[in-house]
Amino acid sequence: MNSHPLFEKPIRIRFSHCDPAGIVFYPQYLIMLNGVLEDWFTEGLGIAYDDLLGVRRVGTPTLRLECDFKAVSRMGDIVSLGLSVERMGQSSLTLNYVCQCHNKVRFLAHQVLVFTDLNTHRSMPIPNDVRAAIAALLPTG
Amino acid sequence: MNSHPLFEKPIRIRFSHCDPAGIVFYPQYLIMLNGVLEDWFTEGLGIAYDDLLGVRRVGTPTLRLECDFKAVSRMGDIVSLGLSVERMGQSSLTLNYVCQCHNKVRFLAHQVLVFTDLNTHRSMPIPNDVRAAIAALLPTG
Amino acid sequence: MNSHPLFEKPIRIRFSHCDPAGIVFYPQYLIMLNGVLEDWFTEGLGIAYDDLLGVRRVGTPTLRLECDFKAVSRMGDIVSLGLSVERMGQSSLTLNYVCQCHNKVRFLAHQVLVFTDLNTHRSMPIPNDVRAAIAALLPTG
Amino acid sequence: MNSHPLFEKPIRIRFSHCDPAGIVFYPQYLIMLNGVLEDWFTEGLGIAYDDLLGVRRVGTPTLRLECDFKAVSRMGDIVSLGLSVERMGQSSLTLNYVCQCHNKVRFLAHQVLVFTDLNTHRSMPIPNDVRAAIAALLPTG
Repeated sequence: MNSHPLFEKPIRIRFSHCDPAGIVFYPQYLIMLNGVLEDWFTEGLGIAYDDLLGVRRVGTPTLRLECDFKAVSRMGDIVSLGLSVERMGQSSLTLNYVCQCHNKVRFLAHQVLVFTDLNTHRSMPIPNDVRAAIAALLPTG
Repeated sequence: MNSHPLFEKPIRIRFSHCDPAGIVFYPQYLIMLNGVLEDWFTEGLGIAYDDLLGVRRVGTPTLRLECDFKAVSRMGDIVSLGLSVERMGQSSLTLNYVCQCHNKVRFLAHQVLVFTDLNTHRSMPIPNDVRAAIAALLPTG
Repeated sequence: MNSHPLFEKPIRIRFSHCDPAGIVFYPQYLIMLNGVLEDWFTEGLGIAYDDLLGVRRVGTPTLRLECDFKAVSRMGDIVSLGLSVERMGQSSLTLNYVCQCHNKVRFLAHQVLVFTDLNTHRSMPIPNDVRAAIAALLPTG
Repeated sequence: MNSHPLFEKPIRIRFSHCDPAGIVFYPQYLIMLNGVLEDWFTEGLGIAYDDLLGVRRVGTPTLRLECDFKAVSRMGDIVSLGLSVERMGQSSLTLNYVCQCHNKVRFLAHQVLVFTDLNTHRSMPIPNDVRAAIAALLPTG
């Protein structure tokens, strides 16, 4: 997670992300995280996420999530949320996320997701085009 | 996490919890989880959570969260979300959650939260009344 | 809207409903409102809303919504959110909602929803069992 | 609402905005609408919304909201959400919103909001800098 993320997005912290303590309510971070995952598919991999789900009926539910919240974010902050691939398995993908603002880490996340057939909610091999697009981004060797 | 939870709530899975795949969108589970934490303070410990935050200005942000999602939940399901105390530190509290439906686990979560002064967002010792109320629920020895 | 609501639910205002101003963020009221609509179908009409949507593929999207926010709600408040039927048309249903706490109105809402076939998102006649269940609750004459 | 909006933002419809029917869950539209209001203050009026709320303790709660939902939005759509000022009163502001995609209206909204002192939740005159910034954008005469 020290290296530069593979894909990154700026996110403005909004009123709707914040709680009565005036800081981001952590489930909102996970909604942002899911947005970055979608954008990575669509913009980074060139595989429209809405098409993957809606037309091809392939889902990417989360199996495991670990988060470390390091510093609070406040309304008006513009954070950067970046994603890196740790490992691509047969059906699963392990991703690391780092959310930063002014080069200070706000939170780190580690996510294992699995590709599923949305008609059965059973796991399935990562589709070939998705696998190829991810493989092309990973260091070889 | 095998033992019976210390505090438990039934939750009906609603339309608003579910995603286009027709199952709970996982950040919604964490909003539910936060609701059970609030209810535990208010109903289980006898310490009104809204008073703790709003009047006493004591926050309970999450430092670390680990979740394992074991099975999908669908609209209409009535799940049970239970909480147990793993450890009470000087300023921090480690909690385990189990979400079940018909005795099958839907997800497990492990949360470390810290008590903070909401005026400074710095950690503070667990308030005495909170500590005493939690200690009274824990097995002695 | 002066008469007693046809169906009513108590709702505890939670941390997750509130904004940095410490009061309910109004879109959260509309999520609650949708929850009461679901509960009315399931508990009041005896027509499981999850079954209506998920199995029968009948949706109830909102065509028009009017809300008047009269007083703020704070974390810890237990409000009552009630629903009444104003009019049942061929495909549409006009509902009034009143949200109160200690007999003071927090907000009023007026909603026109339409029954749709979720495969086409086109309007359809109100299903017979839904129509009969609603008609049975309305004053005759 | 026929004229070009005063301020406009593109919004990508995400997984998290959509419901089990595969279309935007309408409270999510209102969260987007609030985001456009914030951005208009910060980017359009040059008055940082987070500063207005967090530092100056001026809130802008909604008094009245009317929405007409004209057509469904699906995951992957990029809609445009625009805002226009209908009227500026002593303490209140009346705004119209139009959400479009490919020149077709998805929803229209009409909002009356009021400026409040967040310490008391009472209405207050629109602050002078806000009033001047809005007045500068309105047609004279």
